[in-house]
Amino acid sequence: VARIFLVTDYGLDDEFAGVLHAVIARLAPDASVIDLSHGVAPFDVAGAAALLARAAPHLGPGVVCAVVDPGVGGGRRAVAIEVDGDGPRHLVGPDNGVLTEAARAFGIRRAVELRRASDLASTFEGRDLFAPVAARLATGARLSDLGEPLDVDSLVEPPRALVATRATPDGHVALLATVRWIDRFGNVQLNVPGRAIAESSTLGVVVKGEDALVRVVSTFADLDPGTAGLLRDANDAVALVVAQGSAAERFDVAVGDHVELVGSFGPLS
Amino acid sequence: VARIFLVTDYGLDDEFAGVLHAVIARLAPDASVIDLSHGVAPFDVAGAAALLARAAPHLGPGVVCAVVDPGVGGGRRAVAIEVDGDGPRHLVGPDNGVLTEAARAFGIRRAVELRRASDLASTFEGRDLFAPVAARLATGARLSDLGEPLDVDSLVEPPRALVATRATPDGHVALLATVRWIDRFGNVQLNVPGRAIAESSTLGVVVKGEDALVRVVSTFADLDPGTAGLLRDANDAVALVVAQGSAAERFDVAVGDHVELVGSFGPLS
Amino acid sequence: VARIFLVTDYGLDDEFAGVLHAVIARLAPDASVIDLSHGVAPFDVAGAAALLARAAPHLGPGVVCAVVDPGVGGGRRAVAIEVDGDGPRHLVGPDNGVLTEAARAFGIRRAVELRRASDLASTFEGRDLFAPVAARLATGARLSDLGEPLDVDSLVEPPRALVATRATPDGHVALLATVRWIDRFGNVQLNVPGRAIAESSTLGVVVKGEDALVRVVSTFADLDPGTAGLLRDANDAVALVVAQGSAAERFDVAVGDHVELVGSFGPLS
Repeated sequence: VARIFLVTDYGLDDEFAGVLHAVIARLAPDASVIDLSHGVAPFDVAGAAALLARAAPHLGPGVVCAVVDPGVGGGRRAVAIEVDGDGPRHLVGPDNGVLTEAARAFGIRRAVELRRASDLASTFEGRDLFAPVAARLATGARLSDLGEPLDVDSLVEPPRALVATRATPDGHVALLATVRWIDRFGNVQLNVPGRAIAESSTLGVVVKGEDALVRVVSTFADLDPGTAGLLRDANDAVALVVAQGSAAERFDVAVGDHVELVGSFGPLS
Repeated sequence: VARIFLVTDYGLDDEFAGVLHAVIARLAPDASVIDLSHGVAPFDVAGAAALLARAAPHLGPGVVCAVVDPGVGGGRRAVAIEVDGDGPRHLVGPDNGVLTEAARAFGIRRAVELRRASDLASTFEGRDLFAPVAARLATGARLSDLGEPLDVDSLVEPPRALVATRATPDGHVALLATVRWIDRFGNVQLNVPGRAIAESSTLGVVVKGEDALVRVVSTFADLDPGTAGLLRDANDAVALVVAQGSAAERFDVAVGDHVELVGSFGPLS
Repeated sequence: VARIFLVTDYGLDDEFAGVLHAVIARLAPDASVIDLSHGVAPFDVAGAAALLARAAPHLGPGVVCAVVDPGVGGGRRAVAIEVDGDGPRHLVGPDNGVLTEAARAFGIRRAVELRRASDLASTFEGRDLFAPVAARLATGARLSDLGEPLDVDSLVEPPRALVATRATPDGHVALLATVRWIDRFGNVQLNVPGRAIAESSTLGVVVKGEDALVRVVSTFADLDPGTAGLLRDANDAVALVVAQGSAAERFDVAVGDHVELVGSFGPLS
């Protein structure tokens, strides 16, 4: 049975997400629809792209339909992407970067610009374009049935924060990272791969001029409740955490803020 | 496979919505259940009725089960309505207006007052009455199995705000509308059909004594980000919007507030 | 078709709950997954245990997977419990009390400590351990395939507030109860069985030094809107309510607060 994975910024109070389910059920009655999240902040393309990249390795076969689309109805392209690997075969959405990181991680085979059924502008392309296309792919349509091929190098890339390093006077390395995600529990994921930090080491953390020394641990339970630490999180990224508490509150950080780590590091890419 | 569409004011923090799913799964194991929304504000019958009317044309066959019910356990009737058309065949819920607008749009064939299994008052009729009835209808029960026929003209109508017009001294028309819905993005839907406004015209908008001139556009992307406009929205109603922003915040309006549009208009019904 | 019932404190903004669905869909494609709630407050084991105990009698056959786990990755055991009755046959989760009350209500047959696939600590055992185990149970695995038997008397019990009574000078009984749950509507469920109160009686309610006289009614509609009352709620517990309003706001109470009822009572257990 085919599966369709949804990511939107629709929220769950309005009927938008439910209507996507209904539209898919009509066109692909046997497909099973899984809500990855409808809680992306309104218009937050980068947040949705990061969420999808985190979830993608765990999805298995199916079709991703991601609709976070500040430019709905405008000039930006609507696309379907076919990828390699044993995860989702297709990703559908606006060409604004929401799909690209997850698609590149699988390896892009080809992509098309979606043909619209009507010349009329729609203000709800999730309902009128993206969900129907996802349903058609779930029932066996081929990419070539859906639109014209496009140059995959022309797909819009999400903005990506870089990781910078510098040597400190006392022979350490200072790594300037960016907060990529804060989850419901206040764990602060950085744009640094997990292998950059070595378990049992101690690192300096500098945020907004304040610094602290924290231990690198393997899991929350290695820290006393209320204590801060660094760990390789469930996406194998570096996360700043507080056991049974919120690191985001403790360090007063938000997505996009900079966090400097000071000490010794493994490979950064 | 039969589908059941749920609308409630239960929220998603408590187990109420999950228990409806479980009850339905026991009685109609093959039915597929689609959550239109459980985020209706507590006791907001008019909001749920509007949501259901917006979603209804997109649902396809199935059974609607809507439970927003300030009078639970009281004298108000519990009903099941059978309708025409190629959408849901049945709508189930309290007779307080939550179902009536959507049902009338399809065309009502007949309705019954639901028989209760017990004389005992229930404080959770979603679980104990409405979901079981929806499950029975999804598995082929007929309306006559569920209760006694009632006069469909006696079904409670939702309160409906009227649209009033007056001529202005300078030869325009002033249309007094009411805010019917504000979605997650802050788009402000008015109780005015989309055909009343002509694309590319400019209209005056008067809210709480403040006025502004805005353009009628066909989609968000026709407006510069941050700019207000009017458009025919995805439900073919007139909506006051701000591109990539919240019109509800910009104009400081809530559901039920009045908005006056000034200019020339097409048919209002 | 097998059913899996989920309870977590993951919320719905992050992709955590969606990833559980995806993991289960890969391992048990025919299972149907029902979200009881992902809105448990972060780390609120007692709240999740109460929610699960309330929902359990209505679930029917299946597997419960409950992940509210402040001690993730630490020394606490991961368990699967097999129970009697016609509800869920298995309950899976951390051994921190989240499962125990619901399991004991069905009658515990046996339990195992789950074997982990890897020695590596995980920070997302919902994805890496509990959901896969639930999927395996849904597809016919036996408890003995999953780990080593444990002494069911050693399962961690949730903290449980006691109900205390004393005689008042004027010959009544004062019953000191604890707020166990406040639902979305502000109804205040106490840790007192429904049969303790007799319909049509009047009881004193003492909260934080303030007292009020309220009627015991059978349902909300027996009260004028805005009026407080006591009733046997949909879980057959005593609830302090306000018709079409919030009793939690009226009496300014939170979960864990004490409420004293004064009058005459039926059996308390």
